[in-house]
Amino acid sequence: MKGKFISLEGGEGSGKTTAIHFIQKWLESHNIPYLMTREPGGTPLSEEIRQLILTPREETVNDVTELLLVFAARAQHLSEKIQPALEKGIWVISDRFLDSSYVYQGKARGGDFAMLDQLATWVVGDNKPDATLLLDISVELGQERVVQRQHQDRLDKESLSFHQKVRDGFLERANADPERIKIVDASLSLEAVQKQIEEQLLQLNNAWSGDV
Amino acid sequence: MKGKFISLEGGEGSGKTTAIHFIQKWLESHNIPYLMTREPGGTPLSEEIRQLILTPREETVNDVTELLLVFAARAQHLSEKIQPALEKGIWVISDRFLDSSYVYQGKARGGDFAMLDQLATWVVGDNKPDATLLLDISVELGQERVVQRQHQDRLDKESLSFHQKVRDGFLERANADPERIKIVDASLSLEAVQKQIEEQLLQLNNAWSGDV
Ligand SMILES: Nc1ncnc2c1ncn2[C@@H]1O[C@H](COP(=O)(O)OP(=O)(O)OP(=O)(O)O)[C@@H](O)[C@H]1O
Ligand SMILES: Nc1ncnc2c1ncn2[C@@H]1O[C@H](COP(=O)(O)OP(=O)(O)OP(=O)(O)O)[C@@H](O)[C@H]1O
Ligand SMILES: [Mg+2]
Ligand SMILES: [Mg+2]
Repeated sequence: MKGKFISLEGGEGSGKTTAIHFIQKWLESHNIPYLMTREPGGTPLSEEIRQLILTPREETVNDVTELLLVFAARAQHLSEKIQPALEKGIWVISDRFLDSSYVYQGKARGGDFAMLDQLATWVVGDNKPDATLLLDISVELGQERVVQRQHQDRLDKESLSFHQKVRDGFLERANADPERIKIVDASLSLEAVQKQIEEQLLQLNNAWSGDV
Repeated sequence: MKGKFISLEGGEGSGKTTAIHFIQKWLESHNIPYLMTREPGGTPLSEEIRQLILTPREETVNDVTELLLVFAARAQHLSEKIQPALEKGIWVISDRFLDSSYVYQGKARGGDFAMLDQLATWVVGDNKPDATLLLDISVELGQERVVQRQHQDRLDKESLSFHQKVRDGFLERANADPERIKIVDASLSLEAVQKQIEEQLLQLNNAWSGDV
């Protein structure tokens, strides 16, 4: 049986990376083989592309350039890492995936949705995540949580209205595809967030246990 | 008046870089302001993308990844370097451009031409070169000329049949667009090649001197 592909989505500071560690423990306790990965990135080449995207630079980065780099990294990530793992029955958990492109490059930066759809068709096709956990949190609370972090990358330095568009964009996508995208209230305590995630994982695992 | 945009195309060892130096002297002797550039590359970010593409690596590079990287570099090159120069009346001479993508990623690697056309429309649109000089040479002679060079990059290491497809691909494009793409017989002596290039430049400059 093929592995399941789960992506974690949400704005900066929503708790994706923290949630990934919790999911990792849950998978271990259920003896499910898994692979943790992230986007942009995931393979050596894709991680190099990630560096190109995130490094602050004097040169203005054209929106189309950024979009093509994101999908170049994703094409590599899917073909060289995600798909081979799923084929072997390994679950893949990715810190961000396709929804982030629609939200950051599309909604928040005003990118071309026709271009996004075409790239998504070429690069991802039917290989969308089986489930996506959207960690939803207010912009203010998300920002509070990242304040303590030293390192700021190019995308962190955006305005509050940018982050608001990000939040709205994720919620719109969840409303448009409620079968795949499950909203988690990420503003709650760590325990309460993990409880929601565990419930989602149990439900998904039950639903999937009927799959061949 | 906008500057003119000229690209140099041809297989490895056809003499593009050598021709560029000759064109540079010609432009100087005609007091034409110019900018020399190359693809993949041309801006700091695009040169970093070039490194990702050309560096030999253990990881298999997915064809779609390579294609998207090439066009990401091109989007940046056009918007940040080529277009601003042309707007200022500066001529731009590029060592390779769009035709190389069709020939290398399309014809030689069997890439998806519908994808190439779509990317070309998004990224290049009407900003094709005003003229392209195709340095045509047999695969054997081209290979002889590169043999002395030490450094071999990822694309150099291709088979003879690959290089034959490259030559055929360039000639097909020239035949399909003879108005823009001028074939130069690059198998001749340096002097004979430069004579052909100078004739083309004089013809083009005469034709363009009527432009506003
Ligand atoms: N439920 C929670 N309650 C309080 N603090 C939390 C909670 N979840 C995560 N945090 C803390 O908030 C900060 C941001 O969390 P985390 O790094 O997991 O977010 P992220 O979504 O991965 O952010 P980024 O998009 O920047 O990678 C961390 O310091 C983390 O310990
Ligand atoms: N007409 C010519 N006759 C003989 N040798 C030539 C001629 N033109 C160039 N050469 C030599 O052939 C070699 C390859 O030329 P050059 O580097 O200009 O090719 P190129 O098309 O830029 O190759 P690449 O695609 O690998 O960059 C160089 O050593 C150059 O000096
Ligand atoms: Mg994180
Ligand atoms: Mg050269």
